Amino acid sequence: MPDPRFFTPSGPFTLARLAEIAGSTLRAGARRERRFVNIAALEDAGPDDVSFLENRRYVDAFARTRAGCCVVDARHAELAPVGAELLLTDKPYKAFALIAQAYYPEAAPKPGRHPSATVDPTAKVDPSARLDPGAVIGARAEIGPRVRIGANAVIGDGAVVGADTVIGAGAVLDYCLVGERVLIHPGVCIGNRGFGFAMDPAGHVRIPQVGRVIVEDDVEIGANSAIDRGAGGDTVIGRGTMIDNLVMIAHNVRIGRGCVVIAQVGISGSTKLGDFVQIAGQGGLAGHLTIGDGARIAAKAGVFQDVEPGGAVGGVPAVPIIQWHRQTAILGRLAKGKAVKTK
Amino acid sequence: MPDPRFFTPSGPFTLARLAEIAGSTLRAGARRERRFVNIAALEDAGPDDVSFLENRRYVDAFARTRAGCCVVDARHAELAPVGAELLLTDKPYKAFALIAQAYYPEAAPKPGRHPSATVDPTAKVDPSARLDPGAVIGARAEIGPRVRIGANAVIGDGAVVGADTVIGAGAVLDYCLVGERVLIHPGVCIGNRGFGFAMDPAGHVRIPQVGRVIVEDDVEIGANSAIDRGAGGDTVIGRGTMIDNLVMIAHNVRIGRGCVVIAQVGISGSTKLGDFVQIAGQGGLAGHLTIGDGARIAAKAGVFQDVEPGGAVGGVPAVPIIQWHRQTAILGRLAKGKAVKTK
Amino acid sequence: MPDPRFFTPSGPFTLARLAEIAGSTLRAGARRERRFVNIAALEDAGPDDVSFLENRRYVDAFARTRAGCCVVDARHAELAPVGAELLLTDKPYKAFALIAQAYYPEAAPKPGRHPSATVDPTAKVDPSARLDPGAVIGARAEIGPRVRIGANAVIGDGAVVGADTVIGAGAVLDYCLVGERVLIHPGVCIGNRGFGFAMDPAGHVRIPQVGRVIVEDDVEIGANSAIDRGAGGDTVIGRGTMIDNLVMIAHNVRIGRGCVVIAQVGISGSTKLGDFVQIAGQGGLAGHLTIGDGARIAAKAGVFQDVEPGGAVGGVPAVPIIQWHRQTAILGRLAKGKAVKTK
Repeated sequence: MPDPRFFTPSGPFTLARLAEIAGSTLRAGARRERRFVNIAALEDAGPDDVSFLENRRYVDAFARTRAGCCVVDARHAELAPVGAELLLTDKPYKAFALIAQAYYPEAAPKPGRHPSATVDPTAKVDPSARLDPGAVIGARAEIGPRVRIGANAVIGDGAVVGADTVIGAGAVLDYCLVGERVLIHPGVCIGNRGFGFAMDPAGHVRIPQVGRVIVEDDVEIGANSAIDRGAGGDTVIGRGTMIDNLVMIAHNVRIGRGCVVIAQVGISGSTKLGDFVQIAGQGGLAGHLTIGDGARIAAKAGVFQDVEPGGAVGGVPAVPIIQWHRQTAILGRLAKGKAVKTK
Repeated sequence: MPDPRFFTPSGPFTLARLAEIAGSTLRAGARRERRFVNIAALEDAGPDDVSFLENRRYVDAFARTRAGCCVVDARHAELAPVGAELLLTDKPYKAFALIAQAYYPEAAPKPGRHPSATVDPTAKVDPSARLDPGAVIGARAEIGPRVRIGANAVIGDGAVVGADTVIGAGAVLDYCLVGERVLIHPGVCIGNRGFGFAMDPAGHVRIPQVGRVIVEDDVEIGANSAIDRGAGGDTVIGRGTMIDNLVMIAHNVRIGRGCVVIAQVGISGSTKLGDFVQIAGQGGLAGHLTIGDGARIAAKAGVFQDVEPGGAVGGVPAVPIIQWHRQTAILGRLAKGKAVKTK
Repeated sequence: MPDPRFFTPSGPFTLARLAEIAGSTLRAGARRERRFVNIAALEDAGPDDVSFLENRRYVDAFARTRAGCCVVDARHAELAPVGAELLLTDKPYKAFALIAQAYYPEAAPKPGRHPSATVDPTAKVDPSARLDPGAVIGARAEIGPRVRIGANAVIGDGAVVGADTVIGAGAVLDYCLVGERVLIHPGVCIGNRGFGFAMDPAGHVRIPQVGRVIVEDDVEIGANSAIDRGAGGDTVIGRGTMIDNLVMIAHNVRIGRGCVVIAQVGISGSTKLGDFVQIAGQGGLAGHLTIGDGARIAAKAGVFQDVEPGGAVGGVPAVPIIQWHRQTAILGRLAKGKAVKTK
């Protein structure tokens, strides 16, 4: 049960309404008017809660759950405890996500401008936006409808923030155009001077970085991540891409749509990712690479070569994932004094 | 000698008082009323300073030191320079730490609320707390006695900060209950939305994250680290755990008591650490693991499996540390063209 | 063409002036009074733009460019398109950097103190400095001529910031002396309490950290990096060293002049780097090491031993780079079932 100090559920919702929200079907005889008040994990749920089964590993917990309602794939329906209502779907996790959003909607912020916020007279701030205490909006910046700028966040001169976007406390945005429904977490720095200079024994010579950062719609960027602006041209984060905490994205990187970039990943300058690429935690990519659509990069991998669409790589330097598993298996054998077969 | 611009030592302290502070014994004939004014490293110390010997590697420096007083194990006492007073103990480093704390105590902050701080009218701030310039305290937040909230730090709605805790400048705390005597360094982000969504080609669906972060007493969290709140349920940092800079802790991680987590470590969602676990720099842990009490994880390790209590692992993927050392030795032999023994 | 919302070029400059700025020579018959208005990449440039060729890989783009003027090595001059003016030099990238700086100079900030900035009455702020909204200057701090303190940045008690230095928004500087012409990016935390404590089952005992951070002239420090102050004595970043984003530098590290430290590197306590050391992305260095002048450390390396001057290492644990390449080649052969030659 979420702490009421922080979270208040909407609802309750009837079973019929939940089915609608989740795009799922009910069993014959379902009590369509039964009401549910909250969401919970299988082990914690009670008769008024909605839970879900996605991972086969939890079928036992499902069989024992006291949840009054469960989102579940039809092929597990028979395992359900007596009396539980079921919402049947082939994508239980997504369906549950939609239900969770219904109980805990991200409400538009209350419009307003805290008196301690600083807004340059040339900035355009939509009257429905909310500026929290200490927020700073630079010259000519544009803040769209229903945007929330968190406390002490700083929007630099000329930056643009699209409708319904949330900027976390203490985040700093410079030289960027940010789309709609974007979530920028606290402490994120966007638009920093990229790491560009001509090396010289007499003193490295900095090269002005005169590009931008483009953050497309529906992107999420995790806490304390850093995204540098282009040297010339843009650094781009494609629509719907999810970036975790403490991620580093260098100048002129271009990330496609729907990518997933886990915590502490680093992507070097000018590398291009296609759509729906996944990079697991602490992975690193060298510069000037091309990573194809749907490619997957294992945790802690160090990628120094292009990866083809749909490819999966791991290790340092990264190799196809199957080869990486073989390498670690062989090393394991050798370390135990076992022979390794060779041709 | 610490720069007086930044640090002013307390004291001086007599030898007798230092013995008391350090829980250590004096040699026969010690000049109990001799006074010492500061602490210093063995090489830098003078006759008015207290120094210490812990690491056997520094016995030569100890034999040559000009320090007037040294904290040392009894078995090294005979190497001491003539005229040095000795504080004898079997834990010299801890004893020195206590002495250093006496010379440089963390004083309670001067109470007060800078006029540029913003405090929601529904927040409860103890009158002995100190709010630095630009600090922001959200609705219903609770700030305990002798707490210091650093400049431009942001305490979100409903968050609780316990007695004698220090929140660094620019830190952001949301959805969390923080204990007593906790040190949160500058730039730390706590309580961020965890990285939770149902992946979907039509657009990933965010799952509301409705848990909290619980930071128990005496914890330390290093600069620019990020700790996400639970998806449901809590992310927990156990009592006395020390976390270094730029560490990432994902939703629903549970860390036990007295753990030590070095810089740039990442811990994935729902992983559980026992008590007194140590993770060296840049280590990474996959999600849903159980790491037993007292386990030790080497620098740069990538842990994808549970580690048993007292276990020590290294490498990517991590294996028992002895096996990892063998692997690297074997690789070294092969790279030099040497044969490797197999059964 | 840089977005005029963010960047306005100086100039135009005549060819003769550009040659002077770049320290380069013109060909016989060059139209010395021809004017150029901007810089651009080879593919994007037009007749009024200056571009450059450094990397041999781009000779084709050079041969086809529409740039009116190119900085180039004399040996590639013959490939130039008809009508292009050439600036000849043996360091084209450095020469172009100087030209780019001329078009996009880092102007001294407009002096002034935003009314929402907080300045302790005992601080000394040069009248030519600029304090952005929400900046906080502590007691006895000293801010030099033409310094810019970004919005919501915090300069702690006693800290010193030298002339022409730029402190990014939201950065936090404590216990430090910062030189001239330094660039500190947003979100950087300098002078944090180092990770020092005596481990003890009854509760780790914190050791006061009473040193400083010295940042010498012309240093650059990337967004969200963290640099801890010395335990006693100083953490030092040498003149002209370039540090990228999300880098961790522990207490008492000493970095020489002109080093290059790429993103997400971590350097453990008391390690010393000579001059012109290069550490690639996500590299990690153990504590108490000595890394010689000009040493190079590969991306993702884990260095546990000293590196001699001019040495190059890679891998975890790091070995000489040639040996690391051999190791990965051998592993690759074994994983494919191929034999490995041994003596």
